[in-house]
Amino acid sequence: MFYYIIDLLGTVAFTISGVMVAMNKRLDAFGIFIIGFVTALGGGTVRDILLGVKPVTWLINSTYMYVVIGTVLFAVFFRSKLKYLNISLFLFDTIGIGLYTVVGVEKGIAAGLHPIMCIALGTISACFGGVLRDILCNEIPVIFRKEIYATACILGGISYFVLTLFNIKSNIVFAIPIIVVILVRLLAVKYKLQLPSVYGKEE
Amino acid sequence: MFYYIIDLLGTVAFTISGVMVAMNKRLDAFGIFIIGFVTALGGGTVRDILLGVKPVTWLINSTYMYVVIGTVLFAVFFRSKLKYLNISLFLFDTIGIGLYTVVGVEKGIAAGLHPIMCIALGTISACFGGVLRDILCNEIPVIFRKEIYATACILGGISYFVLTLFNIKSNIVFAIPIIVVILVRLLAVKYKLQLPSVYGKEE
Amino acid sequence: MFYYIIDLLGTVAFTISGVMVAMNKRLDAFGIFIIGFVTALGGGTVRDILLGVKPVTWLINSTYMYVVIGTVLFAVFFRSKLKYLNISLFLFDTIGIGLYTVVGVEKGIAAGLHPIMCIALGTISACFGGVLRDILCNEIPVIFRKEIYATACILGGISYFVLTLFNIKSNIVFAIPIIVVILVRLLAVKYKLQLPSVYGKEE
Repeated sequence: MFYYIIDLLGTVAFTISGVMVAMNKRLDAFGIFIIGFVTALGGGTVRDILLGVKPVTWLINSTYMYVVIGTVLFAVFFRSKLKYLNISLFLFDTIGIGLYTVVGVEKGIAAGLHPIMCIALGTISACFGGVLRDILCNEIPVIFRKEIYATACILGGISYFVLTLFNIKSNIVFAIPIIVVILVRLLAVKYKLQLPSVYGKEE
Repeated sequence: MFYYIIDLLGTVAFTISGVMVAMNKRLDAFGIFIIGFVTALGGGTVRDILLGVKPVTWLINSTYMYVVIGTVLFAVFFRSKLKYLNISLFLFDTIGIGLYTVVGVEKGIAAGLHPIMCIALGTISACFGGVLRDILCNEIPVIFRKEIYATACILGGISYFVLTLFNIKSNIVFAIPIIVVILVRLLAVKYKLQLPSVYGKEE
Repeated sequence: MFYYIIDLLGTVAFTISGVMVAMNKRLDAFGIFIIGFVTALGGGTVRDILLGVKPVTWLINSTYMYVVIGTVLFAVFFRSKLKYLNISLFLFDTIGIGLYTVVGVEKGIAAGLHPIMCIALGTISACFGGVLRDILCNEIPVIFRKEIYATACILGGISYFVLTLFNIKSNIVFAIPIIVVILVRLLAVKYKLQLPSVYGKEE
């Protein structure tokens, strides 16, 4: 129940991030909705497709669709006020990717996959909504360019398997990686950390 | 049989729309073929993948491939004459998205999905071929920017469920939504209707 | 065993091609890894998704992930030396698409598909990693614009079915199409052949 609420708050944060990008690109109402939807649910959809889950989760559980529709309406009507929500949205988003990472890792384990593949699935769940958003908006995905975002998910996923090595109980194994993701991302933003680009920063 | 002919005419219209975009982008013969193919069959493919249909329809039914190949050849050889077909193509395309919407809705119903998801699948069937075409051609999808296209499909899908509420017989439930899609699209084009963009028109 | 080595050499060549494009786009470390991964394994992933293979191959066989990780590290550290490998990489890449074409064709046959669909799957296996690479890097896919690349795969796939018509034994049916792909591609590069673009060359 607790995790379900986090999941839905993450969905809200992701949807709003999509809506803001779509409004900046001056898309119409349908475009804004689709970009919000894809940002929120695209990562889990790619994960489900790679795993062969049939059909994908959001087709079966209508709650996600309602949350996205409601959030898009909210974000469009209160678009001039969204800047006051910046910190809340950043927190929801960060907690959201933490949760999605762990959910993705656990789906990989349930499918009997190697830990590296589970971490990959967790990272895809958390990050590929944003990748699809940027592709649909004709941009090179921002997480490929400058944010410590996927890295936080990968470290969270690794911590999951480190904890299971020590036979830690399941609730903690679920919660700690989420905290790892959040901490890494907060530190990265606070200290403006970036992954090195091979040719150095663009002038 | 009648619907199968509409399906194939829609495939022809979609293929030609892809070929024309690809020629404008000066792609080579392979690029033109792929863009035509993706425009015609991409929407149904995304629908099948989301539903977990295995394998996707066009791999099993070769007719679609033959129609696309034939249409690409036709469109390339008679490219200077395509402008005389504008009205026919617009009609085929519009009838095509009407049909695809209803086919998508019915596949969703057959999979036991919620009406909202069925309408989403219908809209995806009808519209995502064009979305994939524009992504492959490095453009923001046109249906996110200015056309009443997806909206027509959504309204057609809603009409389908309204009709079933009244226990209307199946042939009419199949035909009316197609007519709704066509009417909405014709009216939108005639009166130059657009969905509102949140920041108003671009200067 | 022999084919497995070719497969891995092809994976190396594809990964390096992705890394080089990603470095030119000045992506960060995560972006470089993802582009390398997608270039190497994207074609087979699309093929598996279209066929409904569950889950996709690289999730089950970890070797591919290790090869990509190792190759990305190698390519980044020795990036200033990669130009000396140009000819080797071109050969690995060319042999790789030959192999992938045949593997894709055989997976299509195993699924009971029509020869045309098998050839399509072979071509997708060989070429769509590069298509996804270019989409993620916000470019129109290069194989749609100027290279004889997919054409080589299609001809290789056709030769496969021509050979089976003559009841040729299986090892040769496997090897000859690979050689066809390699020869077509070498000749195309040597004589600077391009597919015609419908409007002629760009000025």
